[in-house]
Amino acid sequence: MIASLRVPNPEKHASPKLPLGMRHFPIAGLGILEPTKDTRSCGPVDTPGTLGYASFFCFSPFRIAIWTQRTRRMADLKLPSRSEDFSEWYNQLVLRAELADYAPVRGCMIVRPYGWSLWENITEQLDRRFKATGHVNAAFPLLIPQSFISKEQSHVAGFSPELAVVTHGGGEKLEEPLVIRPTSETIIGHAYAKWIQSYRDLPVLINQWNSVVRWELRTKLFLRTLEFYWQEGHTAHANFEEAEAETRRILDVYTDFAINEAAVPVIPGRKSDSEKFAGADITYSLEAMMGDCKALQFCTSHNLGQNFARAFEIRYLDQAGALQHCWTTSWGLSTRVVGAIIMVHGDDQGLILPPRLAPYQVVIVPIFKNDEEKALTFETAKKIREQLVKADVRVKVDEREGQSPGFKFNDWEMRGVPLRMEIGPKDVAKDSVVLARRDKPGKEGKSFVSQEGIGESVTQQLAAIQQALYDRALAFRNAHTFEPKNLEEFRTAVEQGFARSHWCGDASCEEQVKETAKATLRCIPLEQPGSSGSCLFCNKSAKEIAIFGKAY
Amino acid sequence: MIASLRVPNPEKHASPKLPLGMRHFPIAGLGILEPTKDTRSCGPVDTPGTLGYASFFCFSPFRIAIWTQRTRRMADLKLPSRSEDFSEWYNQLVLRAELADYAPVRGCMIVRPYGWSLWENITEQLDRRFKATGHVNAAFPLLIPQSFISKEQSHVAGFSPELAVVTHGGGEKLEEPLVIRPTSETIIGHAYAKWIQSYRDLPVLINQWNSVVRWELRTKLFLRTLEFYWQEGHTAHANFEEAEAETRRILDVYTDFAINEAAVPVIPGRKSDSEKFAGADITYSLEAMMGDCKALQFCTSHNLGQNFARAFEIRYLDQAGALQHCWTTSWGLSTRVVGAIIMVHGDDQGLILPPRLAPYQVVIVPIFKNDEEKALTFETAKKIREQLVKADVRVKVDEREGQSPGFKFNDWEMRGVPLRMEIGPKDVAKDSVVLARRDKPGKEGKSFVSQEGIGESVTQQLAAIQQALYDRALAFRNAHTFEPKNLEEFRTAVEQGFARSHWCGDASCEEQVKETAKATLRCIPLEQPGSSGSCLFCNKSAKEIAIFGKAY
Repeated sequence: MIASLRVPNPEKHASPKLPLGMRHFPIAGLGILEPTKDTRSCGPVDTPGTLGYASFFCFSPFRIAIWTQRTRRMADLKLPSRSEDFSEWYNQLVLRAELADYAPVRGCMIVRPYGWSLWENITEQLDRRFKATGHVNAAFPLLIPQSFISKEQSHVAGFSPELAVVTHGGGEKLEEPLVIRPTSETIIGHAYAKWIQSYRDLPVLINQWNSVVRWELRTKLFLRTLEFYWQEGHTAHANFEEAEAETRRILDVYTDFAINEAAVPVIPGRKSDSEKFAGADITYSLEAMMGDCKALQFCTSHNLGQNFARAFEIRYLDQAGALQHCWTTSWGLSTRVVGAIIMVHGDDQGLILPPRLAPYQVVIVPIFKNDEEKALTFETAKKIREQLVKADVRVKVDEREGQSPGFKFNDWEMRGVPLRMEIGPKDVAKDSVVLARRDKPGKEGKSFVSQEGIGESVTQQLAAIQQALYDRALAFRNAHTFEPKNLEEFRTAVEQGFARSHWCGDASCEEQVKETAKATLRCIPLEQPGSSGSCLFCNKSAKEIAIFGKAY
Repeated sequence: MIASLRVPNPEKHASPKLPLGMRHFPIAGLGILEPTKDTRSCGPVDTPGTLGYASFFCFSPFRIAIWTQRTRRMADLKLPSRSEDFSEWYNQLVLRAELADYAPVRGCMIVRPYGWSLWENITEQLDRRFKATGHVNAAFPLLIPQSFISKEQSHVAGFSPELAVVTHGGGEKLEEPLVIRPTSETIIGHAYAKWIQSYRDLPVLINQWNSVVRWELRTKLFLRTLEFYWQEGHTAHANFEEAEAETRRILDVYTDFAINEAAVPVIPGRKSDSEKFAGADITYSLEAMMGDCKALQFCTSHNLGQNFARAFEIRYLDQAGALQHCWTTSWGLSTRVVGAIIMVHGDDQGLILPPRLAPYQVVIVPIFKNDEEKALTFETAKKIREQLVKADVRVKVDEREGQSPGFKFNDWEMRGVPLRMEIGPKDVAKDSVVLARRDKPGKEGKSFVSQEGIGESVTQQLAAIQQALYDRALAFRNAHTFEPKNLEEFRTAVEQGFARSHWCGDASCEEQVKETAKATLRCIPLEQPGSSGSCLFCNKSAKEIAIFGKAY
């Protein structure tokens, strides 16, 4: 039994001075226990405050807990408080909820099964929407001739510094180096130029689910990694209006997804020229506020005008028989969104997942003291699981041996399962169960529910949680959105959330914000209250209000 | 109207001497028509017999047809006969059914929406089976430190010649080159070593859907490409027996998929030592016979023993407290299977897709002569589509303007839609429709069916087609499987199909087959008739029968 471990000298072993090459821990009565093997690659050992357990990140929460019972550094093992150290709270939560892990290559991540299951639910909900709006999926190659990137001028300027370059293949040096796609406008442009001949071929509405590589210097799991997973849509149209309509239609699709699936309130808006995609005429984005009041760009939708059509000669014969360049768009949403979901909804106990996307919506924990009670509660759990599956609820029965209910509660709280169902012998006797909402701690979130009609009761509670998460996030954003009256108020505002300010549209004012307030123009919201005013930075007349904030 | 094109001098333009740089075709009355821009990268211009249209591959079938009406090389534009030139029939079918296209990087492919939709159906059916047998998905990085590949001795020997190497990232030369995964045993082994600590963590049953890169020299769309799409499962177990059971369980899952979804008869068997995976103790595969009587390895399942566990130190504490190396497996099925489906079922008219996997199971072609009839037939088509959708049938109404029914019939035959529904004014009047089976040409495959209960009629016919495709493929394989009595008969047998022969198990006999008969040992079938005999090649006693053939 691992639970009976005794560590001879825990202080010493738990010390940050533990040599990295050390592989085996002698444990009394057990032989050898093996902690993480290459700490450098699997946990932030140099992060202040993580000294006590830096070497043990790769243990499951259970084993971290056991270990620390034998040390005096137990406090270190709790998730850092979200309010005290948001960044460290995030890092540890991702690892300990087993959403992702660090890969051996700097800046790359492994998305673990629990995290990938969440991403699968995200992709399913988006894919359904893309198909319903007439899009189809395809797959374009990973490898792009380096010369392709250079064909569109602002594109090459934007992406050249971030490329991973393949110089050798099959043991030989390549004539022309290849790059791993940082995004696929160029290679898809090349294909569209071959496929599109006439107005009859338009529109082309293709999406692909894949991964791309950008050589980022400062990385953070899900939020910014060298390789990340996403979808990229690429469409071609006969004129500007249709391309613009597509760009906006997709922004609507994303908005619907963000609100109704991820429970994340978002601001749809237009990017300023300095913030738009390298090669786009217009970039739209959704901006969301995270739990630390910083902004995160949830996704983007670009009207590429005729820039890529010109660079790759994507042309069509119009109805009058004249050759025209197409108008193209591209749009994407990535695994960043997993980071957004964590940072919008999570709390000090761990993740809180929106029911619509949670890998498990309900976890059933049978509670028993002896074999008889065990048989009884397991039988009921099994029966209820079947009912929930019939009601299309994603449910898991926690049948782990040798773990206390308390441990299981904490574990599933860490993993953010929206609803916990407890079944003890008394519940069995009363034909009821206990439901505990993840979003409402303690008694407030608990209810006793009859086993009859359990499918419906659970479905209702899940819908209520989904709504509550959205409402809470929206209230939080509203409470942290300010309308500063002068530069001083502006600087305070962007420290505490979003600033809504009139902006003249001038790049120099935008630059001033970056320099003096260390914030950026997040977007010019599509919904404008109407009244014009004067630019907060230069006092010139301003027709639009923009959102400013510090961003991920 | 493109249909009114007139080409001034088609013979000249359709000639293979057309300069590759030539981009525009002057067309009377239309201005300029643009054929493929970089013929070298998009069609096999150097393939004999394709002279007349090599430059036009990237046109849709419609436009190829139009073009050829204006040339005297029309015959060239028909799909080459399957019996006369199987390889060229395959190449052209893939392009003209718009399953895939050549990418600008040698040996890479673009999977076009129709081909990807087929692959999506394949993935869905497999993923469902993997999850039902307890597997979960995850995502491991694309980039692997080059040193990882060298850690397992036979693995490095097998894969080193095929690696794509990233030497530069973010504008700088990397300290250690990275390789693009050719398969993920190494990087997953590294992760498992971190994650697995105790017997309680076992088994680990993870799968991933991704693409891998192997620097192949001779490539063919779907069958062998530099980058290909697949799933790779990687599991870790406490002992040999569990690993072996997993390896076999997955082979059963694949077999079930091949037979019941792809309608491809397969022979489950064990690979000989010379044919097994680089790093495996035992490799199992499914072997299928293609329409040209050659063998294709449908998928593989490997028992990796403790080879990777030793190389990456994947260890666990057993119940007695002793450290043990894990036993691991890996298994994969790739986009090759799309090639198999084409080559097993297709005919001279094009693809024939098994209904269970077809992107569209039914295409409805309304037939009309005037606007009144058009309105009538479209209305009925719409009504029937709704009924079919309710019956979970994937259905498409061909509403294209300006195309004759005959053209549409040919087009959907090329694309292999299993069932065509024709609706003319007379059918509307009689409350009936015409159903035409893709697998039975002419009158034999036609039936008049009442519109009432159309969902059930269609579902029944689809099931019948699915079964008929399997039966036909099985009969074909049986007719081309021989039991040669001597070496001469053996050599004839492997020219015409599979040879079933006793084999002593000796590598030198296997080598002799390669050299003298240009065939390989495909597998030692799991089902052995029982009787032992003498090796066909050395006459020594042989306990097992093996399947030999020429292979893709």
